[in-house]
Amino acid sequence: MSADAGVIDLLGMLAYGELLAFDRMAADARLAPDLGRQARLAEMAAWEMANYRRLANRLTALGADPEEAMLPFVTALRTYHDNTEPGDWLEALTKAYVGEGISDDFFREVAQVLPEGVLAAPDRALVLDVLHDDGYADFAAGEIRAAIAADPKVANRLSMWARRLTGEALSQAQLVAQERSPLTALVLAGMSGGESVDVLFRRLTTAHTARMTAVGLNN
Amino acid sequence: MSADAGVIDLLGMLAYGELLAFDRMAADARLAPDLGRQARLAEMAAWEMANYRRLANRLTALGADPEEAMLPFVTALRTYHDNTEPGDWLEALTKAYVGEGISDDFFREVAQVLPEGVLAAPDRALVLDVLHDDGYADFAAGEIRAAIAADPKVANRLSMWARRLTGEALSQAQLVAQERSPLTALVLAGMSGGESVDVLFRRLTTAHTARMTAVGLNN
Repeated sequence: MSADAGVIDLLGMLAYGELLAFDRMAADARLAPDLGRQARLAEMAAWEMANYRRLANRLTALGADPEEAMLPFVTALRTYHDNTEPGDWLEALTKAYVGEGISDDFFREVAQVLPEGVLAAPDRALVLDVLHDDGYADFAAGEIRAAIAADPKVANRLSMWARRLTGEALSQAQLVAQERSPLTALVLAGMSGGESVDVLFRRLTTAHTARMTAVGLNN
Repeated sequence: MSADAGVIDLLGMLAYGELLAFDRMAADARLAPDLGRQARLAEMAAWEMANYRRLANRLTALGADPEEAMLPFVTALRTYHDNTEPGDWLEALTKAYVGEGISDDFFREVAQVLPEGVLAAPDRALVLDVLHDDGYADFAAGEIRAAIAADPKVANRLSMWARRLTGEALSQAQLVAQERSPLTALVLAGMSGGESVDVLFRRLTTAHTARMTAVGLNN
């Protein structure tokens, strides 16, 4: 495998992730209980497209077609979203909070550990930069905490929902890992400094549990 | 009526129009025949939110609450969109091309004719600036023309669809005019230089017909 194929896979998956995050957040904005929150979520969705544009431009600069680079990830990511359609505003926020938390952690780890020869500095900077800033997580966390404070039973329902989300995400991630050897090889290359995939996985789990606890949900 | 109430109505209606245009274009992006077009429409939708932000900031600066300023227009605009749900990609593009064309023409006329004492220069500049640029219209026009070239029967179907859109838009516009006296007074104030609403209406119709002809549709 050439390092470039893995990097293009990485950027392509991130680009499609942005496009799909836009799509989902735009749809979720309709579930908002008032116009102010609807606008806030819509603005966050719009921000994903700015990141999409940067990734698409970088793919083009690397000689790749953004559409072709995204295509291998369409089925897995769409299946994940179709299987985890939020039923209301709180489920939508929990899904984004949990799902983007894990996915951002994963890409941050990968970008940080890959050696310069595999992931060039501008690509590393771009990947770290397009990961969601804390604005969305803070907004979602505030809404979830307030809902649990108003009705403690909500915690149980959302905890179960979050477990369903992580189960479905893991299942689709496995499919991607099996089908996309360039991306898998890239991730494994990042582990070559003695780190095993297990260690990465454990770190992601710890961070996920901390995020759940922070808003009053049980893992 | 104070001039300010009319201006706040104007900015509030534009702000909600941006939020709803975002919502509709984001939904329409799902109808796109490929990822490239989907991304293109999603990027145009995201742009609406940048305009929304500018209008919301201006409303706040004028001492108005953006959410309250938008609320009076929710029912009419939502009814319009709910009654004109596009069935496919071409209907979605035709709707945006026709609907935003008329609505932009209307707001441009109003902003241009209102005297400085009624609409302050910064507000006039803002209104003119947030009106859709030609990027979207050009994109939609290109798609519609290509579809008609590939299958001339499409022209008839889309022409009928466009007539339904303008009929529904007129019906909702009348309701807004009746219910929102500050906005209606503002528009009428702009006509005081001898212009009648009829003349404005005729100009809007002429521009609409030209837009239809330009893409091969019949009025």
